[in-house]
Formats: sequence, structure tokens, C-alpha cells
Amino acid sequence: MTDQALSPPVDAVEVSYEELCGALAAKNLSPLWKVNRELMPLEHRSSTLPWLWRWRSLLPMARRCGELITIDRGGDRRVLALANPGLQGRPYTSTTLWGAIQYLGPHESAPAHRHTPNAIRFVIEGEGVWTTVNGDACDMLPGDLILTPSWHWHDHNNSADRPMLWFDGLDLPLVGVLEAVFFELYPDETQPVVSRNLSELLYGKGIAPHEPRPGSVRDGSAGTARAPAGGLASPLLRYPYTTTDAQLEAMLAGTRSDVATVHFVNPANGRSALPTLGLSMVRLLAGAATAPVRRAGSSIVVVFRGSGYTVMNGTRFDWGEKDIFVVPSWVAAEHHALERSDLFVTSDRPVLEALGLYREEMLDEEQSVSARFVPL
Amino acid sequence: MTDQALSPPVDAVEVSYEELCGALAAKNLSPLWKVNRELMPLEHRSSTLPWLWRWRSLLPMARRCGELITIDRGGDRRVLALANPGLQGRPYTSTTLWGAIQYLGPHESAPAHRHTPNAIRFVIEGEGVWTTVNGDACDMLPGDLILTPSWHWHDHNNSADRPMLWFDGLDLPLVGVLEAVFFELYPDETQPVVSRNLSELLYGKGIAPHEPRPGSVRDGSAGTARAPAGGLASPLLRYPYTTTDAQLEAMLAGTRSDVATVHFVNPANGRSALPTLGLSMVRLLAGAATAPVRRAGSSIVVVFRGSGYTVMNGTRFDWGEKDIFVVPSWVAAEHHALERSDLFVTSDRPVLEALGLYREEMLDEEQSVSARFVPL
Amino acid sequence: MTDQALSPPVDAVEVSYEELCGALAAKNLSPLWKVNRELMPLEHRSSTLPWLWRWRSLLPMARRCGELITIDRGGDRRVLALANPGLQGRPYTSTTLWGAIQYLGPHESAPAHRHTPNAIRFVIEGEGVWTTVNGDACDMLPGDLILTPSWHWHDHNNSADRPMLWFDGLDLPLVGVLEAVFFELYPDETQPVVSRNLSELLYGKGIAPHEPRPGSVRDGSAGTARAPAGGLASPLLRYPYTTTDAQLEAMLAGTRSDVATVHFVNPANGRSALPTLGLSMVRLLAGAATAPVRRAGSSIVVVFRGSGYTVMNGTRFDWGEKDIFVVPSWVAAEHHALERSDLFVTSDRPVLEALGLYREEMLDEEQSVSARFVPL
Amino acid sequence: MTDQALSPPVDAVEVSYEELCGALAAKNLSPLWKVNRELMPLEHRSSTLPWLWRWRSLLPMARRCGELITIDRGGDRRVLALANPGLQGRPYTSTTLWGAIQYLGPHESAPAHRHTPNAIRFVIEGEGVWTTVNGDACDMLPGDLILTPSWHWHDHNNSADRPMLWFDGLDLPLVGVLEAVFFELYPDETQPVVSRNLSELLYGKGIAPHEPRPGSVRDGSAGTARAPAGGLASPLLRYPYTTTDAQLEAMLAGTRSDVATVHFVNPANGRSALPTLGLSMVRLLAGAATAPVRRAGSSIVVVFRGSGYTVMNGTRFDWGEKDIFVVPSWVAAEHHALERSDLFVTSDRPVLEALGLYREEMLDEEQSVSARFVPL
Repeated sequence: MTDQALSPPVDAVEVSYEELCGALAAKNLSPLWKVNRELMPLEHRSSTLPWLWRWRSLLPMARRCGELITIDRGGDRRVLALANPGLQGRPYTSTTLWGAIQYLGPHESAPAHRHTPNAIRFVIEGEGVWTTVNGDACDMLPGDLILTPSWHWHDHNNSADRPMLWFDGLDLPLVGVLEAVFFELYPDETQPVVSRNLSELLYGKGIAPHEPRPGSVRDGSAGTARAPAGGLASPLLRYPYTTTDAQLEAMLAGTRSDVATVHFVNPANGRSALPTLGLSMVRLLAGAATAPVRRAGSSIVVVFRGSGYTVMNGTRFDWGEKDIFVVPSWVAAEHHALERSDLFVTSDRPVLEALGLYREEMLDEEQSVSARFVPL
Repeated sequence: MTDQALSPPVDAVEVSYEELCGALAAKNLSPLWKVNRELMPLEHRSSTLPWLWRWRSLLPMARRCGELITIDRGGDRRVLALANPGLQGRPYTSTTLWGAIQYLGPHESAPAHRHTPNAIRFVIEGEGVWTTVNGDACDMLPGDLILTPSWHWHDHNNSADRPMLWFDGLDLPLVGVLEAVFFELYPDETQPVVSRNLSELLYGKGIAPHEPRPGSVRDGSAGTARAPAGGLASPLLRYPYTTTDAQLEAMLAGTRSDVATVHFVNPANGRSALPTLGLSMVRLLAGAATAPVRRAGSSIVVVFRGSGYTVMNGTRFDWGEKDIFVVPSWVAAEHHALERSDLFVTSDRPVLEALGLYREEMLDEEQSVSARFVPL
Repeated sequence: MTDQALSPPVDAVEVSYEELCGALAAKNLSPLWKVNRELMPLEHRSSTLPWLWRWRSLLPMARRCGELITIDRGGDRRVLALANPGLQGRPYTSTTLWGAIQYLGPHESAPAHRHTPNAIRFVIEGEGVWTTVNGDACDMLPGDLILTPSWHWHDHNNSADRPMLWFDGLDLPLVGVLEAVFFELYPDETQPVVSRNLSELLYGKGIAPHEPRPGSVRDGSAGTARAPAGGLASPLLRYPYTTTDAQLEAMLAGTRSDVATVHFVNPANGRSALPTLGLSMVRLLAGAATAPVRRAGSSIVVVFRGSGYTVMNGTRFDWGEKDIFVVPSWVAAEHHALERSDLFVTSDRPVLEALGLYREEMLDEEQSVSARFVPL
Repeated sequence: MTDQALSPPVDAVEVSYEELCGALAAKNLSPLWKVNRELMPLEHRSSTLPWLWRWRSLLPMARRCGELITIDRGGDRRVLALANPGLQGRPYTSTTLWGAIQYLGPHESAPAHRHTPNAIRFVIEGEGVWTTVNGDACDMLPGDLILTPSWHWHDHNNSADRPMLWFDGLDLPLVGVLEAVFFELYPDETQPVVSRNLSELLYGKGIAPHEPRPGSVRDGSAGTARAPAGGLASPLLRYPYTTTDAQLEAMLAGTRSDVATVHFVNPANGRSALPTLGLSMVRLLAGAATAPVRRAGSSIVVVFRGSGYTVMNGTRFDWGEKDIFVVPSWVAAEHHALERSDLFVTSDRPVLEALGLYREEMLDEEQSVSARFVPL
């Protein structure tokens, strides 16, 4: 081999500890013993900080962006990312989750593209907007959840005279780490609309329009080939708030509880609607609270309606309508509602479960609240 | 071994062919070569015959039974089984499926019991009846589908002044062959009703009240134990016709087709609502037809609404509202609607799929109709 | 509708109970109340009887068949089915399982065919035989298990000067009830042999020659299409006794137990090697016994080596080498080894599990043996 | 809310673009439009660089570490991480994979601990070492693969007079990003050894010691509770090279190919032995080559035996015995063997597949080699 001459003779590394460390670095080798306890600490550590963004701060900034930034100037989306202050300037809400506010002005369109990161849109304010996903125009009303799964074409369109704001949740930080980000622009500005809320018509009532997949792995060797059962992402792309609201009411009434949770699932397999994002809505009646728990994996909470507070590792975060906060991995958290509240939660839990890394711990006693979060 | 003396000496079987056959029978041995082509025929054979039962015959008989047979006298259910004439007197509609009409008089109750065979109830006529399934009272209106899955307590109750009739579909013939029939009477006449249509409230809107099961086999070794994800049967017990109807309409409108099919699935896993029974509703607009196909496994069709005919292996079976017919395994079948029609189909397809035995064949040309079925 | 005139007027059925019963039969309707307790008995019932076939009876009969029946005369296989005396003359060992002895004379071949019922061959005596399965010649030595899964071409060939006998286990009774029996003759007498024990080379060491299937349902929508993960049946077709024996020894040594069981599984998914048949080998050391248990579903036990007895519902069945017996559904059974014994077990358990019908009950106390089985 | 006064009035943000950017940063908001094309580039980008570490550089450094670093001083492991030069000083081989050389001196023990990251050990040099995993001592010989799955206790022990070196592969970078790293020291220095290679005895022959899991999701509602089928990680902890070698030879002979690949799978489910790591061995005969392909996700290749070269994105990386190189995500790669070679591959592919993010592209033509890699 021709490069042999370039390599140092073996005995050249009979060196001191300091020289060894230098030689290691020169060869792109890194001694574990220097970073051992940092990589595998005896107590769980999280870079992600518990944090809360107030709507009354977000809204005027988003509006001002609407004035100053055109969709053209701003790339193809006008988005303010919720950048966790623990993540050293990266525009991520947690190490795995991207949370942001997207602002679409009157009669604007955000052009069509697709990417491998999965995304969800949860509508906070406005109406008259639809997102076209692979040709199916999905209406967006406050409280609606719209999926734009991995590698699905999507564009957003506002036909109204008012701007619209929604929450964007993506698995972008995780897909970035996996070095699996692929992106493509659609040939035209927007896709042709071939149907309107069709996925909801087909999949939104809990009975399937297509043959359910077999109970076992696949059809027998004797079977004729049939259409594939589809991918990991939900064929249902729109979960309207009217349905969410009705189900939560029914659950509260039916179970006589003061907290109810619905999970947005893929009707084709009963799993999470997206393979990387857990999506749910928690309704708490006035005075209700959830038990303190800590979980591996992080989540972003959008306060759709109501007010209350969440205690995270002993700090109280007061929240009102449209505020957004993040619960980092393994941080003890409990929610308290001062009035009837709806919390929309986006998490990375399906990832941890799929990889055998999920764990949770119910905490017996409410931790004392020793501090109160005051945003900068 | 003490019974050695009872056994014939080896050379005792140096016998003629005829003597050998006798000796074999005496030892409970059966020569394959005598039944070879019967057990494994070169062409597929089905004992189950294509057959149709007319409602105008069924109804008066069911009424007369209502007069003559008390629930007491009639065991705990007043049921007329659709006995396929090909099955030598056994009360089964096909070799795997039990189809029947159940009649519940005004102010009658059919007492609570449970059994391992799975059952469904599809309401044909009447109202004011509910079936309590493990404590959850499920209302029964025409076109509604009610599940009473394996080993779930159930009783039927009619609070109205009119009798009620519904279709019973069970996997009883199959479970019988598996010698897995277990049955138990409830201690009391009926169960206490602890909720009303609760399963529908919880599971009927396509968003899950409980944490979806992980995408992979099970939670990680690091995970804390959590509640099991449930059994094979659907937690949703009631599929109201109002929903079925709305979805079919939406599908026809959304896809601009003249045939639409919904499958009743288990929302927890996207598979068939029951592990042994495939359940679907087919809507055909006037003049529409399905392509000829033959499938391994049998199905029973209840004409909920409309009129038309089905060609099975070249024989035309005319049907009208509430008629019931059976499509045997591997019989070529095609449906033609003369007016807008709803066909409720119960099949054994999930069984064949789970065991790798399902196959189907699309037939290119409509077979000529060479005969017309005339019931005896 | 033209056949209306043929139908009796409704009031014609205002008849007596006896007349009603006749009218029902004429219309292919069967009243449940007459057969209620027979179909759903309060105590579990099984038609299949516990039974045992002695090798010293089987062997001379099989030999005599070898002399009297040519493969030509005898259809394409020379097989003696173990016909359970509880099944009214049907040639089945239980309601779901076919058990039989197949005899292949010196230099004979059983011609190639395929069928949807799954089959296994467990070698009892002889050597020099191979079964070609879809082109792969699988050697057959005593104690070897050979699979001929659903719809796989197979022929048996004896190149030796001695006859060979093996046990055939099939799901034929079940597939027959499902009316899913399909059969096809191979164009030639035998298949060309394209490989020899290749499946064993590829799949027999617990590490996979092909990419393991993804942990989740299927690859993502972004993924390129790849080869299907295969069917329900094992790609491993031969499980040699040398491996079975070595593993059983290792387990007994490693766990210091006196009973060890191995299950023959599909290495591609860890499930049973065939979707309809459970297959295992139980080794008991001299004096060892299994705890009494009753299980839904039946099984056939081939005594490969050793001697002992099995108590079934209070009757003792003594067994020696190569005897075969059947354990019916829900019959309490316990095995006792007088010397080191290997029991090869074929069951229908995967079927009951796939359909949610499996149950078992461990019995605390050994039931008293009140009778001893003496074959006719 | 008390902190309301701290928040700026809405109209205070009627500011210039520059002021807005400052205000956004102050509120932990990050504008997407500045990083749009960096986060979602039009062409796929990978920080991980193709890289190769030569054994003749690694070995003397590892030896010198053995002299200078005690296990005590070095934390609990003496490990040199292969630090990819594209990852800005982080000690990771790719963004998801940790690759390293571990050196254990004569008569040393690396103390027992457990952590949520999954790890594998692939033995490069030495003998007389075993790793105890949850009480089962697994022997380590060159070419053996040993699993220490997530949250399993493990310690390494060298009873020989020679040092030992092996390759460590972990999913630590990924689990770190998921903020799911948990770590625990065992109370004692090492675990008691309760068995020796037991997992191999029980699970290493492709037939299962325990009841295979049901084909469908879980047992029926009627079933009695049974032991859980286990976690995501393989119960087989040791894959000896003797088996790997024999299978590769059989595959080459049986398929008459010049390249064969075995995948190390979990015998309980046929999936990858660990939920986060793909593990395989590729054998190339002299002169053989693999087709060029690029795949989402990265892999680390340990040259166990042989020599050859790998072309990655047009650069040729020559390799010899025990060299280690990394193939980054979406880098076109093809392997060429100059002599018979065994390549041990650790990848993150199961993660990408589980999340629906896996894709690959076969490249038709070999890319021209325009450069040759010369390590610094």
C-alpha cells in the first residue's frame, strides 16, 4: 500500500501521557476517560430546558415579521422557531423537536415542497386557510390538526382577508441527526387541488374504506398480490377540532373524570398518526390536575384554551391561552387548570418506544414549587 | 407392557387386500388411497351451496316463532338459523359461518351469557332495543352493527311495544371444529348497565382515548410496565348506521365512483373488528355492479336496502330488501344493483388471511347467466 | 319479482308448532332452541377422543400395504391415516389435525404435487430418502423434521434398499372446513433438484442471510421498494435431529432441569414454523413428568424415543418407542417418562392463538388414574 | 398574572428589521428564513465524513494507553473513540454511531455497569476474555459478536496473560440526542457468573426454547395470562465466529456467488439483534465487489480479515486487516476485495426503518475514482 510511508513507525508512539493525547487527536481518536461521566452521567441530564413562550410576546413579533418579511424574502415559509435557550443557539425547541409559529398573511400562499421530516400544523388563530397535501386540500380552523407526513407535497394557502397563525411541529432535529433530511421543491408554485378534505371523508369516522390489513405479517404464499397496506404515516390528514372536542366531552361525561386525553392515531394501524411524533389533546376541567410524572423524551405543549400552570422540576410555569411551553426529557411535570383548558401536546414518544428506550416514572408526591418561571 | 398379549402377532397381518382393509379399520387406521381425490380434489370443491333466503318467507316464520316459542322454552335465544342445504342438516350457513334471524318480542329480554364464539348483530327491523356488552348498553337501530366479541357478557333487551329482528353472524361452526367452544351463564338474568354507548363515545371517532401501542413489538426492557393494549377484538362495540351511511356518501362523492365499501375495523389496530369475522358494507348506486371475483372463504350478505341480483357460478339470485344470501368459497360472484342498495357482508376472510390461506381471482369476463335461482 | 307467486302467502304459516317446524325445514331454517345446549354446552365437549396407536400394530400393516399397494394404485402416496374413533369414520386424528404413517418402499418415488394444506414429515425409521421442496432436496434421517408448507411443490424419493416410514402431520381437516383446499399435480413425476439442504445452510444457524424485516410495519413512504419479507411459512425447511438433540442436551445441562422443550420456529419472524401447526420436541429424563394441564386445541404426540405413560382425563396411556397418541382439546394431560424420552408434538395451537381462542389451565393436583387405556 | 408588567407592550415591537431580529433573539425565537437552506438543503448534506482508521496506527496507541491509563484512572473503561473529523471534535464516528477500540490488559476487569445505550463488542485480537451479561458469561474469541443490550448489566474480564482488543459499537450519539441516557454502576466490581454461554445454548440454533409468540398481536381475551415474549433486544447474546464463518461458507457454496452477507438477528422475532443497530458480516472472495449504492443512515465497517478498497463518493479508501472505516449517510459506496475478506458492519439502519426514513439508491455505473484517501 502506497501510503505506508506516511504512517509513523510503531515505536514513535512510546511517548508521555501528554504526547499521547496529542498523538491521539492527530489520528482522530478520542479518549473516553476524559468524557466518560459527561457522556454517561450518574444522574440523568438534559440540555433542553423547561421553557415557556408567551403568546402576547409571540403575536406582535409574528405580525411584525408579516410586515417586514415577504414569503419570497423569507425563503418559502414565514416561521419563528421556538429556540430552547439550553441548546446553544440552535433553533430547536428540544433536541428532537422543532416547534414554531408560522404566519401566513391575507391572500398569501406558501409554495409547495416536500421533505423527509414529518410535520404537523395545529391551528391557533384565523380561518380561510387550507393546506394541500398530495393534492387533498385540508381546511384549517382553530384547533384543527393537519398532518404533512414525510415526503408528502404540501403548500399553504390563505384566501381570507385576515392573517393566520398556526403551530408547526416537526421531527427535524432528529431527522437531521440521522442525516436523513431530503428536500424537494414542487415544479409549480402550488399543487392542483384534486379533492377537498377527502382523507377525512375516507378515514375520519373509524371505519376503513379499504380492506384492513391481515392480522398476521402478510398474506399467504398462495395469495394473489394486493395493494400494499400503506406506509407508517396516517392516511387521515385532518383531525378537526369539532371531532376532538366532541370526543373529549363524551369521555369526560362517560367516565365522570375531570381529565380526558385523546391521542391522534393512524386509523390504519392504531398507532401514532406519525411514526416520529406523538400527538394528543388533554382537556382539564377547572381545578383539575394531572399526577406528577417524568418521562424519557420531550414534548411541546400548546395551550389551545384555558389557563393554569405546570410545575416542572419544582418551578411553576403559569400559562394562558395560546402560550407554548416545552417539557424536557425526565423532567417531573404536572399540569393544573385554573379554568377549563385544552392542551395540545406534540412529543417524540413514538421514537423512544420504537427503539426500546421509553421509560416513565409516576411520582407519588407533588414536588414543592420552589420557584416561578419569569420569561426574560 | 400388560396389553402386549392383546396385540396380534406381526405375521398375523400377512393377509389379503380385503383382510388388510378390515384389519386397518379395526386398528383405527384409514387408507388414504381410497379417499385421496375426495380430500384433495383436482378441482376446488365446496360443500356450501350458493343460497338465498327471502325475507317475505323469513318474517312470518319468525313472527310465528315469537308466538309459539317463549324465550324460556327456546333456551335463552329465539333464533332461526339459515341452514345451508349443502351441509347435510347442520344448522350452518357455511362451513365456518353461522347466520340467523333473531326475534325479540316486545318487553322481552334475552338473558345474559358469554361464549368463546364471536358474534355480531346487524339490525334489520325495530327499535327500542339495546344489547348490554360487558356492562355497556349499546343501542340498536336499523343498520347498526353491534359486536359481542368472544367471552364478553351480553344480553338483549327490548323496552318497546314492537318486536325486533336482527341478523346474527357467528364464527360458531369454526370454533366448534376447533373444539374451543366455551359457554357460561351470567349469574343474573341481565347485567347491570354501567354505561350507555360508552365504547362509541371513546372509540367511535377515530382518535384514541388511550395511549396508542408502540410501533414495535413491545416497550423496551427499560420501560416501566403499562396497561396491556387489549385483545384481538375491537374495543368499539357499536358502529351506528348513521356513521356508515355518512361515510359511504362521502366516499361516493369524493371518489366519483358508483360503488363504495367500508370495512368495520378495530380502531386499536386497524384490523378487522373481530379476529374471525370480516365485516363490511357495500353501497351500489342504481345500475352499478361489482366485477366478478372468486375468493377462498365464504360470506353471508344481508340486503339492508335496495334490490338487484347477484350472479354466482352462472346462476342469478334476485334479491330485495332484507333478503339474505351466502357466497360459498371460490364461487364466482358479482353484484348488480337495480336501485341504490346497501349490502352488509359477514365473511371468514380474516381467518384465511391469518393462516396464509387466502386467495382470490378477478375474473375478466362476466360469466353468462345460465340459470335463475328459485327458492323451494 | 317473478318468483313471488311461488312463495307461500304470509298467513299460510299461521300454523301449529309441529307444522311450523316442518315449514322451517322446508325453507332451510333451523330452530336454535332444539340444538342450543348441543352447540353451546355448559361444559366443554370434545368429539375427539384420547387415543393411542401402537407401533407394533402400525408397522406390520404399513409393511403389508407396501406389498399390496403400489404408489400407482394408491394414488400418489401410500399413507395410513390415524383415524380418531370419536370422529365418526372420518380419517382425521382430531377435528383439525391429520396424522398418518407414510411408507415409501426401496427405490420408490412419491410424485411431485402441491396443495394448500401445510404438511410436516417427522422421520421415524429409515434413511436414504429425501424430500424435494420447491427444488431444494431435504435429507430425511430419523428424528428430522421436514416442512412442506402450503402450496410448495414436493416429492419424496427413496434411493435406498430399505423402506422408509415417517409421520405425516397436516392441517387438512381445518383447511377442508375452511373450504380452502387447492391441489395441483407437478407436470413431471419429480422436480429437478436445484440445491441440497440449501434452506438449512441459509437459515439453520440463527443468523439471517437476508436483510431482516423492519421493526415496524413496513418501510417508509420515502423508501424505495424492496423485496417482500416472505410469507407466513418458514424459509427453513429442514430441522435435523442432530441440532434438536444438541439443543435439548444443552438446555437440560444449562438449566439443570429434567424436562426441556424446543419449539421449531420460523427464523424470519420467531413464530411457529407453519402458521397452522405448532411443532415441538419435549425431552424428559427418566422419572421426569410434566405438570397436568389442559389446553384449548388438540395435539398429536409421536414417541420418538423412550417409554413412559401419559394420563389423559384420568386414563393412563402407556407408550413405547414410535407409538403415537392424540391429546384432544381441553383434556387434562400429563406425561411421565420411565426412561429418557423424546416426544415430538404437532398441534393446532397457532390457529387458536391467531384467532384469540387459545386458553389453558394448569391443574394443581395430579388427577387420579382410574383406568388404563387398552387399544382394541 | 404577575409577570404581565414585564412584557413589552405590543406596539413596542413596531421596529426595524434589525431591531426585530434582536427582539426575537431576546425572546428565544429564531427566524427560519435565515437558516432555511441550511436546515433543508436542496441537495442532501452529511456532516459525517468518509474516514478510515488504520490498525497499524490504532494498535500502538491502544498499547500505550494500556501502559499509561489504568482502568481506575480511565474511568471504568479504557476506550479510544473513533472521532469523525467532520463532527467538530465530538467523539462520535457518525452522528448516530459510536465506534471505538477497547483495550483490556492481562488479568484486568472492566467493572460492571449498565446503561440505556445498546452496545456490541466485536473481537479483533486476543482470547481468554469473557463478558458477563446479566449473569451469563459470554466467551470472546476473534470474530465473535457479543451483545450488551440496553439496560443489561455487563463487565469484561481478562484471565489471560495477553491484552485483548475489541471494537465497541454503540448507539450513544443517538440516545444522547434523545436525552434518554441512563447509567448505573453495579454494587460490586463484577457480577456473579450464574451461567456460561447459556444464551447461545438456548437460542443459538434457530429453534426456540420458549413458546413462540402468537402470530397476532396478543392472546385472546379468553386466554390466561402468560409470560411476556420479551423485549426488543435479542435473547441471544453471543454470535460466535465459528457459526458466522460456517454459514458464510455454506451460502457461497450453495448460491455459487462471490459475495455473501449474514445479518445478526434476534431469533425471537427475526428482526435486527438490537433495535437501534444493524449488524452484519459481508464476505467477499478475492476479486469480488459489491454494487455501488447509497443509503440513508451511516455504518462503520471493521475489516476482520482480508484486504481491498472501498470507493466512497469517488475517493478510494484502501483497507487491510483490522482497519476501520465509516460510510456516511447517502454516500455512494462500493467494496472491492483484493483477497478473501470479511467486513463486519454496524449501522443505524433499524432506526431509519422503524421511523419510515430509510431509503437507498442503487447506482448503475461505478463512479470513477478521482482521489485516494490518505489518512493524516
